[in-house]
Amino acid sequence: MGVVVALEDGKRSGPGIEPLAALVKDDLDRVNQLIVNKAGSDVTMIPEVANHLISSGGKRLRPMLTLAAARMCGYGGDGHIRLAASVEFMHTATLLHDDVVDDSTMRRGKPAARMVWGNPASVLVGDFLLGQAFRMMVEVGSMKALAILSDAAAVIAEGEVRQLAAAKNLATTEDEYLYVVFAKTASLFAASAEIGPVLGGRDHGEQAAFKSYGSNLGLVFQLIDDVLDYGGNSADLGKAVGDDLREGKITLPLVLAYRRGTDDDRAFWRDVVAREDLAEGDLEHAIGLMDRYRALDDTVDRARHFGAVARDALAPFPASEFKSALLDVVAFCIERAS
Amino acid sequence: MGVVVALEDGKRSGPGIEPLAALVKDDLDRVNQLIVNKAGSDVTMIPEVANHLISSGGKRLRPMLTLAAARMCGYGGDGHIRLAASVEFMHTATLLHDDVVDDSTMRRGKPAARMVWGNPASVLVGDFLLGQAFRMMVEVGSMKALAILSDAAAVIAEGEVRQLAAAKNLATTEDEYLYVVFAKTASLFAASAEIGPVLGGRDHGEQAAFKSYGSNLGLVFQLIDDVLDYGGNSADLGKAVGDDLREGKITLPLVLAYRRGTDDDRAFWRDVVAREDLAEGDLEHAIGLMDRYRALDDTVDRARHFGAVARDALAPFPASEFKSALLDVVAFCIERAS
Repeated sequence: MGVVVALEDGKRSGPGIEPLAALVKDDLDRVNQLIVNKAGSDVTMIPEVANHLISSGGKRLRPMLTLAAARMCGYGGDGHIRLAASVEFMHTATLLHDDVVDDSTMRRGKPAARMVWGNPASVLVGDFLLGQAFRMMVEVGSMKALAILSDAAAVIAEGEVRQLAAAKNLATTEDEYLYVVFAKTASLFAASAEIGPVLGGRDHGEQAAFKSYGSNLGLVFQLIDDVLDYGGNSADLGKAVGDDLREGKITLPLVLAYRRGTDDDRAFWRDVVAREDLAEGDLEHAIGLMDRYRALDDTVDRARHFGAVARDALAPFPASEFKSALLDVVAFCIERAS
Repeated sequence: MGVVVALEDGKRSGPGIEPLAALVKDDLDRVNQLIVNKAGSDVTMIPEVANHLISSGGKRLRPMLTLAAARMCGYGGDGHIRLAASVEFMHTATLLHDDVVDDSTMRRGKPAARMVWGNPASVLVGDFLLGQAFRMMVEVGSMKALAILSDAAAVIAEGEVRQLAAAKNLATTEDEYLYVVFAKTASLFAASAEIGPVLGGRDHGEQAAFKSYGSNLGLVFQLIDDVLDYGGNSADLGKAVGDDLREGKITLPLVLAYRRGTDDDRAFWRDVVAREDLAEGDLEHAIGLMDRYRALDDTVDRARHFGAVARDALAPFPASEFKSALLDVVAFCIERAS
């Protein structure tokens, strides 16, 4: 886990994502170059829309998983560069389509692409990036990696439709919600990690280990994201929070708070979720209920559980810089919430 | 070309698409069964949206090309069934996204899926079908077929964005328009045909021949579609026409009429294309101008040219029922306009 250091804002944190980023830096530079090339087109709208999102400060967590897993498994070729770029394109395509589906206005602190270029461009550039992703996968020539990534593409889309169909359903159970998170988020994390040992020619057991690591890390990532949308478990209202509640999105903190609440509390949640926008005081009241019923703390606890499963998935591997960096990422994802 | 027979409505036509449909009937039944299976999901919205479009009377022309090309090239396996279903899913995904992009209200005489289930569902179910298409391609295991179809997916999406970027641009040249048609429509026809000889293990020359046949047939298909949207070259106003003009879509008949018109004519076109809806008499005036400048007749002539190229692409192949049926399809596509 490394030494816990004090950050500038007074929070304490482990080494975080930096060891991983340092280990894959050269490879990631090549991925970033490839991303710029493959998002290029003489149809200028394509690089404009794509770069708006790609260069807007995503952490490149998924491609880093692919790069690290491939290297850790002794892969010496360069197919992992293309697959890592493919994974990032699949992710970017999903974001473009998600923003259209959710009528989102902001993404990563900037106006969503749809607010600048419109819904049609967002849909079509997403399709283009998905097509480019499959092209790059085919160039790499690993049928096994293609199977894993095309499975993920179908599972992601099915998860998105499932979420749409269950939108604003406060009776959603924790298990139902986790299934959506698995499909929407964890499946691409899982695929990103699993293709590393596949490229490295490792056996089924090692592939399954990386898949499990990725999948559980993805669950951690999304659950903590859900917590952060209510301001983190320290309820730090200084951050931009409340988007999920504003859009009536059912996430785990809300599932827990709703199930644990009184009839009055539930009436409040039903009312807020059904309305188009938040009224004065709604968010504060919501966070107050989350506090009272420990919904945020317990969502972080659930995330810790999946984090533990992710760590144990990698337990059989001998100690290495890569292994240590991948374990640090789990801690990093959890610590984001505190 | 077969015997020309009189149809019920008094029009004359060759054997059309029926010989092809008869030759691939058993295979197509299997494709249709697979389509139903792979569009299935316990997320009920997925089969609902997919079946709305899939079962709404499409001709299945693209999958029939794949089936016929594979059989004509001596392929004895059953990978062509999955690839044919993949091609139809790619096409269906494109239609779902197109209707969102174009704000279309109708598709094949029924309300567009987006009018029934909304834009979000149309975007996401399209993504799901694309994911399923790639899954099926991977199952077949032909890297060459995967390369052809993933290329097509990227080209189609790039063509769609190009069309969006050039929307309502009356200065579009015929060449620019044809490039869009190639990307949006002909590239999938080309891929559908080319994967047949690929499965059959035929040499590059035969693959190129089928690719050329498919590509040129796709150009014919789209140009005739453009003509039909203005009522066909007999200007039969009994049909549902005018959608392209209403949406301000630049198609070849409009490109020709605009370039050949007087300043007054051009002012009319600019006005109509800029407006949200058609005014009383607009469509009749537009069709009158098309007549005066032979825009529809000459679009059909352009289509005949591509039809001739498609036929010659197959010329080196020995006579067979399949070859004859594929040539009949070219005639069928052209005759739709008369």
